[in-house]
Order: sequence, then C-alpha cells, then structure tokens
Amino acid sequence: MGLKKEELEMKQINKTRILGSGIYLPQSISSNEIETKHNIPIGFSEKFSGVKSRHQVTFETNGYMGARALENALKNAALTLEDIDVIISAGASFDYIIPNVSSVILSEMDNGHSFNKTTLDINTTCLSFLSAFEVASKMLDGEQYKRIAIVSSEIASKGLNPNRPETLTLFGDGAAAFIIGHEEVGNSVFYKGSFQTYTKGIDYTIIKGGGNKYHFKDYPYDSNLYSFEMDGLNLLKLAKKLLPGFIDTFLTELQIKVNDIDIVVPHQASKAGLSIFKNLYALNENQLMDNLETHGNCIAASIPILLHESIISGKIKRGDICFLIGTSAGFSIGAILFKY
Amino acid sequence: MGLKKEELEMKQINKTRILGSGIYLPQSISSNEIETKHNIPIGFSEKFSGVKSRHQVTFETNGYMGARALENALKNAALTLEDIDVIISAGASFDYIIPNVSSVILSEMDNGHSFNKTTLDINTTCLSFLSAFEVASKMLDGEQYKRIAIVSSEIASKGLNPNRPETLTLFGDGAAAFIIGHEEVGNSVFYKGSFQTYTKGIDYTIIKGGGNKYHFKDYPYDSNLYSFEMDGLNLLKLAKKLLPGFIDTFLTELQIKVNDIDIVVPHQASKAGLSIFKNLYALNENQLMDNLETHGNCIAASIPILLHESIISGKIKRGDICFLIGTSAGFSIGAILFKY
Repeated sequence: MGLKKEELEMKQINKTRILGSGIYLPQSISSNEIETKHNIPIGFSEKFSGVKSRHQVTFETNGYMGARALENALKNAALTLEDIDVIISAGASFDYIIPNVSSVILSEMDNGHSFNKTTLDINTTCLSFLSAFEVASKMLDGEQYKRIAIVSSEIASKGLNPNRPETLTLFGDGAAAFIIGHEEVGNSVFYKGSFQTYTKGIDYTIIKGGGNKYHFKDYPYDSNLYSFEMDGLNLLKLAKKLLPGFIDTFLTELQIKVNDIDIVVPHQASKAGLSIFKNLYALNENQLMDNLETHGNCIAASIPILLHESIISGKIKRGDICFLIGTSAGFSIGAILFKY
Repeated sequence: MGLKKEELEMKQINKTRILGSGIYLPQSISSNEIETKHNIPIGFSEKFSGVKSRHQVTFETNGYMGARALENALKNAALTLEDIDVIISAGASFDYIIPNVSSVILSEMDNGHSFNKTTLDINTTCLSFLSAFEVASKMLDGEQYKRIAIVSSEIASKGLNPNRPETLTLFGDGAAAFIIGHEEVGNSVFYKGSFQTYTKGIDYTIIKGGGNKYHFKDYPYDSNLYSFEMDGLNLLKLAKKLLPGFIDTFLTELQIKVNDIDIVVPHQASKAGLSIFKNLYALNENQLMDNLETHGNCIAASIPILLHESIISGKIKRGDICFLIGTSAGFSIGAILFKY
C-alpha cells in the first residue's frame, strides 16, 4: 500500500525544497543551418522532430557548462559553494571516463579547489535528474546533508551521426543546476519517485562504440559505431504501451488524481514523444511545459532546463504540485512528484 | 554534532542488512606472464605493486560479469530477481556510453527481460560501491524499497597502457554483487558514510581520451591518450596527508574509537596505498583485509570482492563492526561504517 500524499505532508518527512536554480546554454544554432550543412531538406527538422533551434557547444565541456550552471544556481539561491554538502552530477555524457563528472565540475568552479565536497555521479541517462532528485531527497536529513546541488550538464552534439537526420536535428547541448535543501519552514514536500526499466528495449537507444564492448583500442572510429542510434518507432510503441499504466500506478499509490497535479514537466524526448502526454490527459499549455522547439532533446539536462525556465517565467509558483516524467535508454520510464 | 553510534542503534534507523553476496572472476593471469609478454623485468609487479596475479576478461563484458555476480548473490541470499526492487551499478567502467550499466546487467540476467526493476548507476570511480551502499541505506524504507542489489562490475584491463608497467601490472578485472535489505530483525545497522573530494588532485588519476574533452571523433586512438594515467607519487602524498584527519573526523563524529572497529576493508589501491592503513593504526591481519596479491586493484569491484571473500571465509562474522575505506579519482576519500 502506498502512502497518501496527505500523510507524507503531515509526517513532514521529505521536506525537500528547491532553493534555487541556474542554467548554462552554449550558442544557438538554427535547424536551417544544420539542414543546409548536411544536405537535409529545409524544414525537415521542424516537421519531423519539432526543433527549430538548439544549442551546441563550441569550446565548452561538460565540466565547464556544469560549473557555470551551478554558479548561476548558487547566485539564484543567494548561497555560496561553502553552503553545499554534496554535488551530484546527473547525466549520461562526460568529459573523461575517469574522474567522474561531479569532481570535474567542482574542479572547474571558481574557488572549487578550496572546498572539499562530496561529489557523486548518478546516471539513468535521460532520467538522471529525476533519479538524482529522489536520491537527494532521501539523503537530505538537515544534519549531515543540509543542501545538495544537482547538476545536469550534457553534450549530445558530439555523439550524433551526420548521416541520420532524425537524431542529428533532434538533440541539443546545455546544463542546468538545482540546489535543494532540507527545510523545516515552508510547505515544500518530495512525495515520491518511481523508475522502471523494461530491458526488452535495451538496444532501442544505444551508443555501441567507446565502452568495453566495442573498445576504441580494437574498433577505430566510425560514425555509425560511435554515434547515438535510436529505433524511434519501437521506442514510441513501447512508450505508448507502458506509460499510461505506469502513471496510473504512480498516482494511485499516492491516492491522488491527475487533476491534483498543477504542472507537468516532461522529458523533451521528441515531438512524437511529447504528443503522448498531450493526448493522454486533457492538459492545457499552462500545465504542460515544453521547450523542444528552441532547445531540442538535451538528454538529462532537458527536464531541469525546462523546470528552471518555467520557474523563472512564473509558470511554476510556490505550492504548485509538479510532476516530472520521462523515458530513457534501458528502456526506462521514471517520474517524481513534489510540491514546489 | 554527529550522532552517536549507540543513538543510531537505539533509534533503529538505517536497519540495513547484507542479505547475501556473490562474485564473478574471469581467468587469472600471473605477473610473470604479463612481464614476459611486455618485456618487463621478472618480479617487477610483485615488488612494485604487490600483485602476483590478477583476473582479466577474455570474452566477458561489464554486463556479463555483473549479471553472473548478481545471480550468485541472489543464490547466496536464497532470493530471486523478483525479490529485488532496485539494481544499482556501482562502478567506473562500462560496456556502452548509453544505456547505463545497471540496465545492461538486468538485460543479461536469466529472465532479466521478465522483471521491470529500477536500474540506477552510481559512479564515484573506486569508491562507487561505498557510495552506492550509503545511497541504498538511505533509500531502503521497508515499504517502497525493501531490497536493493549493488553490483560492481569492472574491466580495467582494456584501459591500461602497455608502456606503463606500474599500472599495467597493478589492475585486475572482476565483479561483485551485494543484496542489502531493510530488516527489522537482527542487529545490523548502517552507521554512516562520508565522502570528500579534493580537486587539487583532479588530474592525478585520469583517462584523458574517449569523452567529450578529447572525443574519439577528433582524436584517433593512441595508447597514451586513451589509457589510464596515474601520478602515483603525488597521489600517495595527498593520501598520506589527508587520510588521518579524514578518519579521525569520521570516527569522532560517531563518538567511537579505532578499537571499536572489528574489520577494516580498504580499497586495494596499491601496495604503497595499503601500507598507509597498516602504518596508521595497530591493525593485525585478522582486522585488515587484503587480496591485492591475487586480484590487483579492481577499481570499484575491489572492496566488494574482498568483502565477499572475507564473509565467505568466516573472517567477518554477524555483529562485526566493519569499516570500508578508500581513495578514488577526484581526488576523493570515502568511508562507510556498518554492523554486519
């Protein structure tokens, strides 16, 4: 039996509160520019994936973007690095295989060398921010862990196959950081996270080369082997089949209804992926957040960038019940519910 | 102020209990064999790194070894995959950049496709198992999360530089899995985890190539760029300087003394690294676990393989206070303390 939302509030457990957020976006590049460069019919990107422009790194690295996003989040929260106990990097892409991304982010921050922090990487590919948010909520106790920074810094552009227009035009780069804290004041609550992997879809989204299976020592670079591959049709089928049941179970266990949710922040997987949410429930544009057209799919950074922009623009207000949901490689579905 | 060990036991929080464990080791290869093959003076490995033999993959992948280790752990715990809520992969190496390792492990298990689980990757390089143990202890609530599997499956051998004998002979491959559960019965307790990163040492242990900084699209394979690099001397200096203070703080906050610890399971970083622990405290061989000679440094799998072997051989008994400690890339220090 699940805990009721009201019970969780009354128990005052999981008093997790977003204290501030920030983003870093590299330069924007229009779909027209990519289409022209790669001999793709003009208009393909917008029609097929719903993306007019996205950001792409030039000189930036995961560490650089993550450090800037986190500095912006600290400023937004009126905090300094000293106030943070843990830095969680939540994402799939990285500057180095070793060390982990969170340590690199800390090392690239202004006076990062002066503060020894707990640095931890969490990777559930596109759902990493949601997983990290749940884990952080469980760690925050107001004693050992008072404030945790979650940073999703993703570079998709380097892993895209120039011969596959459907992914080449879909993905974008960017970073977002959130500071979350255990706060006795205020009525912010983390209700629940839930994540399920259905390995039937293990190879529906994959980068085959560059790990131990096809090691670069034995397999020279080739854009097919070393690029992101997506079986869009089968992905969409699986998502359409599994999402309704997943959401029903999630809400039923908390004994809440779709109407109780103020804001839905879905992963910006693709135009087709987003339409599932639009069609499933009668959500209006003030409830269903969306930035695919201007950002593309930024892997794990998509949801936190969109969440940040929705807070800054005033679409999300204190007290709003927010539902963050998406799919990722695995094939996985995940969601978290909290009161902002 | 830290919580006292007794308080934690009385409060009966963090009733985390190891329910079973298992390992998978690929074939063993002697130092003589490696030395002969690579024109390294015979005896160098044992003298320099303290390693006589280690295991190295032939056909195995991270997913394969992890799946076998987890199946062995389930058998050891008299449980089945159905009984597990979450699979955490805790490690630095991987078969694919996407999807994450935990999903690949699930997909390679006997009937893995039949069970949809939460799959989550945690990476603090060599300390990943300790971080995952702490996170799992925070997640386990006996309701949503009753049992969590932590799997560390590491392949170091593919990332070693044939021209650097000191790392070529030091590292090994292998996998270990632990099932931990929230159990009201028994007196097992998770006391505390603590992790600190000092980014002064960010480039003391690094694989430069293969990520977004030196992407394989732009940098063709070369064994120097794409192999693990270690600045052993500076690492050791930093470890020697920081470890005593870190351990003192850890124990003081729990108000316990070194004498209260029954068993120390250190990361098998290197012969010189292990000597720090031997010299720091008056630990006898029944207290300080060690398998460097026969396994080498297996990255994040080192500690759980050694922990498993120490439990199976009877060196660790129910009720023993166990201190797991090590260093990792970052430069990071981390430790967890629990009652087995």
